Amino acid sequence: MSVYLHDIPLPEAKARLQSALEQADLWRVLDTENIPLDENAIGRVLAEPVWAKISSPHYHASAMDGFAVRAADTAGAQPSNPVTLLVGLFDSAPPSGTSQGRPDTCYLDTGDALPEVFDAVIPIENVESLDERGEITPAIRRPASIRIRAAVTPWSHVRPLGEDIVQTQLVLPAGQVLRPVDLGAVAASGHQSVKVARKPRVAILPTGTELVPLGSDLKVGDILEYNSLVLAAQIKAWGGDPTRFSITPDNFDAICTRVEEAAREHDLILLNAGSSAGAEDFSAQVVEKLGTLLVHGVAVRPGHPVILGVIRNQETGNQESRSPDHPIPHPLIPNPLIPIIGVPGYPVSAALTGEIFVEPLIAQWTGRHPQELPVEQAYLTRKITSPGGDDDYVRVAVGKVGDKLLAAPLARGAGVISSLVRADGLVLLPRGVQGAEAGEVVDVHLYRSRAELDRTIFCIGSHDMTLDLLAQFLSEHNRRLASANVGSQGGLIALKRGEAHLAGSHLLDPETGEYNLSYIRQYLSGVSMNVYGFVGREQGLIVRRGNPKGVKSLRDLSRPEVHFVNRQRGAGTRVLLDYQLSKIGIPFEAIQGYTQEEYTHLGVAAAVASGRADCGLGIPAAAQSLSLDFIPLFQETYQLLIPKVFAESDLLVPLFVVLDDRAFQQAVVNMPGYDVSQMGRLMAEM
Amino acid sequence: MSVYLHDIPLPEAKARLQSALEQADLWRVLDTENIPLDENAIGRVLAEPVWAKISSPHYHASAMDGFAVRAADTAGAQPSNPVTLLVGLFDSAPPSGTSQGRPDTCYLDTGDALPEVFDAVIPIENVESLDERGEITPAIRRPASIRIRAAVTPWSHVRPLGEDIVQTQLVLPAGQVLRPVDLGAVAASGHQSVKVARKPRVAILPTGTELVPLGSDLKVGDILEYNSLVLAAQIKAWGGDPTRFSITPDNFDAICTRVEEAAREHDLILLNAGSSAGAEDFSAQVVEKLGTLLVHGVAVRPGHPVILGVIRNQETGNQESRSPDHPIPHPLIPNPLIPIIGVPGYPVSAALTGEIFVEPLIAQWTGRHPQELPVEQAYLTRKITSPGGDDDYVRVAVGKVGDKLLAAPLARGAGVISSLVRADGLVLLPRGVQGAEAGEVVDVHLYRSRAELDRTIFCIGSHDMTLDLLAQFLSEHNRRLASANVGSQGGLIALKRGEAHLAGSHLLDPETGEYNLSYIRQYLSGVSMNVYGFVGREQGLIVRRGNPKGVKSLRDLSRPEVHFVNRQRGAGTRVLLDYQLSKIGIPFEAIQGYTQEEYTHLGVAAAVASGRADCGLGIPAAAQSLSLDFIPLFQETYQLLIPKVFAESDLLVPLFVVLDDRAFQQAVVNMPGYDVSQMGRLMAEM
Repeated sequence: MSVYLHDIPLPEAKARLQSALEQADLWRVLDTENIPLDENAIGRVLAEPVWAKISSPHYHASAMDGFAVRAADTAGAQPSNPVTLLVGLFDSAPPSGTSQGRPDTCYLDTGDALPEVFDAVIPIENVESLDERGEITPAIRRPASIRIRAAVTPWSHVRPLGEDIVQTQLVLPAGQVLRPVDLGAVAASGHQSVKVARKPRVAILPTGTELVPLGSDLKVGDILEYNSLVLAAQIKAWGGDPTRFSITPDNFDAICTRVEEAAREHDLILLNAGSSAGAEDFSAQVVEKLGTLLVHGVAVRPGHPVILGVIRNQETGNQESRSPDHPIPHPLIPNPLIPIIGVPGYPVSAALTGEIFVEPLIAQWTGRHPQELPVEQAYLTRKITSPGGDDDYVRVAVGKVGDKLLAAPLARGAGVISSLVRADGLVLLPRGVQGAEAGEVVDVHLYRSRAELDRTIFCIGSHDMTLDLLAQFLSEHNRRLASANVGSQGGLIALKRGEAHLAGSHLLDPETGEYNLSYIRQYLSGVSMNVYGFVGREQGLIVRRGNPKGVKSLRDLSRPEVHFVNRQRGAGTRVLLDYQLSKIGIPFEAIQGYTQEEYTHLGVAAAVASGRADCGLGIPAAAQSLSLDFIPLFQETYQLLIPKVFAESDLLVPLFVVLDDRAFQQAVVNMPGYDVSQMGRLMAEM
Repeated sequence: MSVYLHDIPLPEAKARLQSALEQADLWRVLDTENIPLDENAIGRVLAEPVWAKISSPHYHASAMDGFAVRAADTAGAQPSNPVTLLVGLFDSAPPSGTSQGRPDTCYLDTGDALPEVFDAVIPIENVESLDERGEITPAIRRPASIRIRAAVTPWSHVRPLGEDIVQTQLVLPAGQVLRPVDLGAVAASGHQSVKVARKPRVAILPTGTELVPLGSDLKVGDILEYNSLVLAAQIKAWGGDPTRFSITPDNFDAICTRVEEAAREHDLILLNAGSSAGAEDFSAQVVEKLGTLLVHGVAVRPGHPVILGVIRNQETGNQESRSPDHPIPHPLIPNPLIPIIGVPGYPVSAALTGEIFVEPLIAQWTGRHPQELPVEQAYLTRKITSPGGDDDYVRVAVGKVGDKLLAAPLARGAGVISSLVRADGLVLLPRGVQGAEAGEVVDVHLYRSRAELDRTIFCIGSHDMTLDLLAQFLSEHNRRLASANVGSQGGLIALKRGEAHLAGSHLLDPETGEYNLSYIRQYLSGVSMNVYGFVGREQGLIVRRGNPKGVKSLRDLSRPEVHFVNRQRGAGTRVLLDYQLSKIGIPFEAIQGYTQEEYTHLGVAAAVASGRADCGLGIPAAAQSLSLDFIPLFQETYQLLIPKVFAESDLLVPLFVVLDDRAFQQAVVNMPGYDVSQMGRLMAEM
């Protein structure tokens, strides 16, 4: 059953839209406006070059506080052979009170015009002021005379006319995105306003009967509408002027009406969502009715159900196409053709659709260069697969461990907006590439600066809820904590490979009852390691409120009506479970849901809270977060394993400050089931 | 005569200000405010962490358009052994019309809640819809039954509750500068507003009797006041709220009154200028009268006459210092102590003072990390010297030529704002370092991205006014032209060293009458070069309007009353002059001003226009720009010399497009004295 139109490659999709806009003469700077030269001009894009109307300085100016002189008058002055010059006033009027009817010198403040008879300035610190009797005086501005002990060359300490900017020269090219100093140069060259590209007006139309606005009381099935918020913020950041429409229900006629309304006053329409091929996905039909559907489905992931089209504007559609020399005369007269983009509904898809399709269009319409993320090479921390038919945008966390830049792939789901928030960059797997191996070097398009990455602590290992608190406290100490939850054993492997600064771990050795040490010997032989105390914590069964299934101990897990949710293989909690089950002789197969895996304690709690499971093994803080009940069973030790080379690095100094911080310790014990008596203590050096 | 207070090192100056603010409990986030979660929140700084109020999704949601099933019901389904499931409606009400009183399956749109009895979703493309008679039907949403040919595992195509965000987890840390996707995550976690740092209010007080506002009719000695514009734009860009005051004349009492007025409603006062020690520099006295002068003079260049101080606010100065737990309750109640910065008057000094002192303060007050420019290593193209006593900020143009990143020092004058506009980065020579040699590797703090540098064409050589036009046309073709004017010979040397993509050159060989070729053989042996025609142009004497000194030919330069202005050594125009002077037997010493050098044709024209000289050798376009007269004397050939490796590179493709562009050629011939008949033609391969 084929419901989607055939996905077409991204470059072809973009070319179709560009071609349609070119035919309508809309592939250019849409319109220009003169705006005053004030601080609100920053970020605007120059629509034409700025040529200097005046020179700067526009006269010969003294570069210092000092005395204007004729350089020739100072010839021969030496420490042992000073020259004395009479001081006069010198405005525009002829000089007076000086030898030969004009003064030898006069005082100038910095920036004062050099009178025409002079050709140099001697800084005030290089002269001796003299009174009428030839004695040294503290008078600065108008002594009777000055004595100098060194000759000066013509034009010294003078800023000649045009030193900075010469009238008629190019000050800034068209397309420049105005920065603060640019405004200064534009002002210095004699302008009071600048001609910039008008901000493209973009209408954002959220559609969907299931959507509710922020702040609604949520019922099951309600979806908070925030894609329009993200899209509007993107458009504003990119230099557009967004309008968020209210939610339109899934009704073909209602959507058509809103689109026609939006077309009258906007340059671009974003229709979100309904771009897929489901029963209530009307976007394609709307575009076909009101204009031309150019593309339905683009081979990008996430985001492939993208629609590109153009809407004919009813009021201007029959006009002649305007020539490039006559841009739209008035901002409120709409364009004859309005591009429309059907934006997929998943938040990650929506945001990436903005980056891929909307940003370049705003760049074109404002005449600036499209944004470019800096690209760096990084090692993939784990294998990623890709269907191969799409340009696949993989979000990654990026950290620098030693000299290695690492890219850790994040959750792939298009619904996981937190993966975009946590993303430090994107890895693009182009069409035809089916994936990349762990350890492979890939190009990462970075959202963060190298400086941010340089202060990122990369923590890979076991999940504990106090890591969120730790991240918050570290952020106040100029460090970012990027943590990937792969379980305790995964953390040891990452440390071994040099792919993490530290790992949280709580691996119990059943033979010794000791935590972590035997595992470190096994996995990390040859790496000098420090083991620090972090938290002692309870582990137990997270159950629904009131414990309706009456779960009391691990023995209850074998009851057929009890559905369990497990942690992933390699998690310390999983090791603990398996150890305890073997002690009491319960086989894994006897447990309903043993193969159902979650990656975090909160994931387990969420599974229980939602009824997906009756119970799971975890920590009490996770239970408390979601108002669940908790059956305490075990006490365990959760430690931080840190290679000595990182433990002694500047990067990790703030970590130890936070571990010693009583405010942090207090915040941890405020969560249930935690003990901080060993926090920050060096427990072993190996 | 010592007029300045002793300059103190930058770190100590910053420490004094910080210490004074710490004592007044003002070294922290100043105040917080709740703002609505809309697109205007981007760029604001979170004042507290965002913890999730709800999970996202907040129920188990179908990840696809498809059919909800019990995974167990699909067990054993295979292509040859399909399973058929009866379709029912399923809202919250008990199901009906199905086997055993409840349906086997029901249709769900993407995002619909999974009814409690089901545990998986089968995408619509994987089912066959059947009608009542068991025949295949096109009905999508409600066929009588569906047939499936593969089993599904529990929870497949379901987005479980909390998949994206689990209630209580950390969504964003305090100090986060909000980006568009962050707003989405905050909304998804159940918030409608965010608590952010209040924008610090900064008063900018321009002072100076010589200052005039933009748009004034300029008289000699008037200085356009635009530092307040640059500072306001900086503050806005950094997240502050600037207020520009009107110009206050140099009057002690008037300045005191304005400062006290500003202190009542602002968090920081910038007093510009009057921070030096000239006769009318009142800033230090004002600060001493109204508060405490902490620093007068900082060892930074440019910018050393910086003043740092604090003003006691008259209305709140006697209040108890507020505790950190009780930030300022209402935005309009002023702080008890207001820091004040005396900003130097030169525009480059003013802008750098903003970067060095104001930006970190706004970062502190809003709780974000101070901005960090990315740092890259580059080769210096020429020697720079530094007094050694200051932290010296040297502006540089940066280009990538081949694999080499190059930093070309720009004009050092603090009055040259165009050098900040042209700057691609800063090289910091710390106190104690007296300079750096040509070829030395230095750290450059980059204003531009690597991508921008990668599309920069680095042109070093002779100056011609058409290069401004070329820069403008290239900017429309996605290229930046960075040009350094070092004369034709300097360009050949830069090409030899691999420090330029191309050079403009018009070096006449007196023996052959040929241009450039013999010089290329001499300087660039071993480099494969292409020589392209660019312009033919007139050279002649630029003289004042009406030619008051009656200059007719080079012979007139030896008249004692004629003051000449020359071009720098190595300039093609200088070579031409020397050649022609030797032909007519005039020695250099006979020419007044022969040693007075300018680096560009416009510089020569400006010297003549301002009366600094009577004449100079140059091109007619420069004379026309400043409404000067021109005596044509010679015809010369100006060519573009391009190493073959660059001529064939992608980077330079747009250059040849522009050279072939009739609009560009027309723009050039619209300037006087230009011939474009050979533009773009390959004249020689060497």
